[in-house]
Amino acid sequence: MFASRPVVHPMEVAAAPANPAQQQQPQGVLMKDLPGMPGTPSGLALRVTQFLLAAVSLAVMSSTSDFASVTAFCYLIAAAILQCVWSLSVAIVDIYALLVKRCLRNRRLVAFFAIGDLIACGVIFSGACAAAGITVLIAQDLLMCSENHCSSFQTAVSMAFMCSFSLAPSFVLNFWSTAFAYRVVAAG
Amino acid sequence: MFASRPVVHPMEVAAAPANPAQQQQPQGVLMKDLPGMPGTPSGLALRVTQFLLAAVSLAVMSSTSDFASVTAFCYLIAAAILQCVWSLSVAIVDIYALLVKRCLRNRRLVAFFAIGDLIACGVIFSGACAAAGITVLIAQDLLMCSENHCSSFQTAVSMAFMCSFSLAPSFVLNFWSTAFAYRVVAAG
Repeated sequence: MFASRPVVHPMEVAAAPANPAQQQQPQGVLMKDLPGMPGTPSGLALRVTQFLLAAVSLAVMSSTSDFASVTAFCYLIAAAILQCVWSLSVAIVDIYALLVKRCLRNRRLVAFFAIGDLIACGVIFSGACAAAGITVLIAQDLLMCSENHCSSFQTAVSMAFMCSFSLAPSFVLNFWSTAFAYRVVAAG
Repeated sequence: MFASRPVVHPMEVAAAPANPAQQQQPQGVLMKDLPGMPGTPSGLALRVTQFLLAAVSLAVMSSTSDFASVTAFCYLIAAAILQCVWSLSVAIVDIYALLVKRCLRNRRLVAFFAIGDLIACGVIFSGACAAAGITVLIAQDLLMCSENHCSSFQTAVSMAFMCSFSLAPSFVLNFWSTAFAYRVVAAG
């Protein structure tokens, strides 16, 4: 046995395991509990924030009379509806998990949430960008704010952008946790 | 020593290590070589593809005479220039690494590439979405294609979208590898 490679300490490992929880739970199925992940209070707060921002964006944009004449504004409304449905669904799952004190850290579930977040984030971000392009065209390039609801458009666009930015932490945490989980599965 | 917990086999480990490379290299600094990562031929091909798509988008959009009157088109041009510079820089690093046969799998470098890819992808995707909103407005809502260069706008926008989609594999691979590397560091 090489003394320069202290890989093993059999008696110490057997006598006092470093992490008893790790010894009992199957690795890769349960992951470390990070704030903002599904099933945590901060994760629920993130979902409620996303839902509120998307709902405000939807309400403000649909309150304007002439949104239907511009495709990008209709797309933003559709994206905000999708975002509301997604955030509300995950929030309900979060509330259920918190009430029954059941963790949602299964790696398949986290991967599903990561993919859903990515799609929702891409859709609402693209809608916000397209609507922002039109809003800037009306307000700055054509100077037609007197004939249009520029302030409503700007409010709806900024809410949609904030919604997509609030989705980013959820996606990054879920994706990171998925990579962690698959690493654990691959390693052990 | 407990026979029911065969955690360690000191003599076997010392006599024949399972993975000699893992024994010699510090864990977390070098990672598994995935196709598409920096320093691999497929990674270089991805970068060249991104550069070409961004360059075509830039050339087509700047060839139209009236792009300067629309802010979103100017933003798309700026985003395409940024994308060209980023893809070309990483491609040069890839070529150097391939020529001197040096790996680029350091976790800090991969994290830097992941952040750079995320920013570049966000910028070119937002530019493409904004320009797409304007293009759809001109072509479908206002039916003014006879007075504008609709085909050029559509080509530039589609190239920018393809460029942002070709950035996604680079970002996902780098981000995934970073999560793997930090997991290894955290575990070991």
